[in-house]
Amino acid sequence: MNQSEKALYFKSLHKKHDPLVLYNIWDAGSAKALKDAGAKANATGSWSVAAAQGYEDGEAIPLGFVVQIVARISASVDLPLSVDFEGSYAVEPEKITKNVTKIINAGAIGINFEDRIVREKGLHSINTQVERIKAVRKAAELANIPIFINARTDLFLGSNQNEHEAHVSKALEREAAYVEAGADGFFVPGLSQLSLIERIVQGTSSPVNVMMKGELNSITDIANIGVARASFGPGPYFTAMSDLAKHYTALR
Amino acid sequence: MNQSEKALYFKSLHKKHDPLVLYNIWDAGSAKALKDAGAKANATGSWSVAAAQGYEDGEAIPLGFVVQIVARISASVDLPLSVDFEGSYAVEPEKITKNVTKIINAGAIGINFEDRIVREKGLHSINTQVERIKAVRKAAELANIPIFINARTDLFLGSNQNEHEAHVSKALEREAAYVEAGADGFFVPGLSQLSLIERIVQGTSSPVNVMMKGELNSITDIANIGVARASFGPGPYFTAMSDLAKHYTALR
Repeated sequence: MNQSEKALYFKSLHKKHDPLVLYNIWDAGSAKALKDAGAKANATGSWSVAAAQGYEDGEAIPLGFVVQIVARISASVDLPLSVDFEGSYAVEPEKITKNVTKIINAGAIGINFEDRIVREKGLHSINTQVERIKAVRKAAELANIPIFINARTDLFLGSNQNEHEAHVSKALEREAAYVEAGADGFFVPGLSQLSLIERIVQGTSSPVNVMMKGELNSITDIANIGVARASFGPGPYFTAMSDLAKHYTALR
Repeated sequence: MNQSEKALYFKSLHKKHDPLVLYNIWDAGSAKALKDAGAKANATGSWSVAAAQGYEDGEAIPLGFVVQIVARISASVDLPLSVDFEGSYAVEPEKITKNVTKIINAGAIGINFEDRIVREKGLHSINTQVERIKAVRKAAELANIPIFINARTDLFLGSNQNEHEAHVSKALEREAAYVEAGADGFFVPGLSQLSLIERIVQGTSSPVNVMMKGELNSITDIANIGVARASFGPGPYFTAMSDLAKHYTALR
């Protein structure tokens, strides 16, 4: 498959009630391990990519370093690759287009793109985020690669669980605007109540992605309510480092 | 500790009958995991560093990329760091000095330096390898950092186990010459018979490093015969990637 074919194949893997399971990777080696284990696609986690190179999350790792890592994953592991690209290292649309172009040129066929203001508090307004998503889509059009834009809202990750029900309608409003602007999927990390996830799924036309964590740990449960994509954020990296430490401790 | 102090502390951790256990790492994240688990020092494995970035072993990963990874480990994890530097990406002494200087500047306080001819068959002659080790020591003197040069012989890794007994005297000859040229320790990967390891230990003045693998898996056994350093080559990386694959497979 060429890069465009990988992008379309990746999109086709998002199925309601039969979610694409992305166990998030952080480098070429972890990508290869999952390919060898049967993964059909890979997705990085920004927290993990940063931590593996000794950086905090939140665009602290230089963009050039992220591009280099993505290029190495693409060059060495022949699977569709989605990149957790945070806020794309820019606020202004023109710079977003430029940076997303770099990630596409490095081999990505999809990105996570978030609406929180990186390294600050709060979310971009819907209007601002719509312009930002259009800038991502523009990069895809310029490169002629139909990348999967997984539009993430940080409404839930940035708030207490008892506020989540009140945020569902706001999330649906954002989803509609984001899809109109060119997004392909909607990512609601931090939302873990199945009944609320189900309301998101029923209120959207695009594939819904949840982040598996804590009590939200059953693929069967989320498949039943129509989720189309499950990812794990920094979880796989935490587990891997914890396993590594355990093996070392057992030696001593 | 500054870099010189780290180098001296690292040297002091090599004790006959109480070996320094180095569970080889490959990036800043794995280095941090081991520091958090109580490691007093870290050492990279060249195979693992390369594999994590999608390269084969044998100096396929560009030198600049290795320097970048070493610099990130040093910048983010405050422990003595030894780098498995293969043949230092050079044959000629002048270039060796230049390349080792780069690794020292990136924060390393020790290196593994091997006598096999990288990407070819066979070993450098003793005379050639002596000149090469002098070139490594020169880099340390120019930088004024007393790095620990762990001189590796590939006599055992490159031969069948039934030849190992015959290679012991050749190894001891090399050890004496390498130490005379400025090496601090002697690394005999591939040698797994305890009786032969014991002969190496008894025939040398410098700390002996073995690679734990397969049947050679007891730290107590190697401590008993006087080994001063145990490392694991690509083992920890294999285990980590195998664990990662298992967690993913269990989800499906």
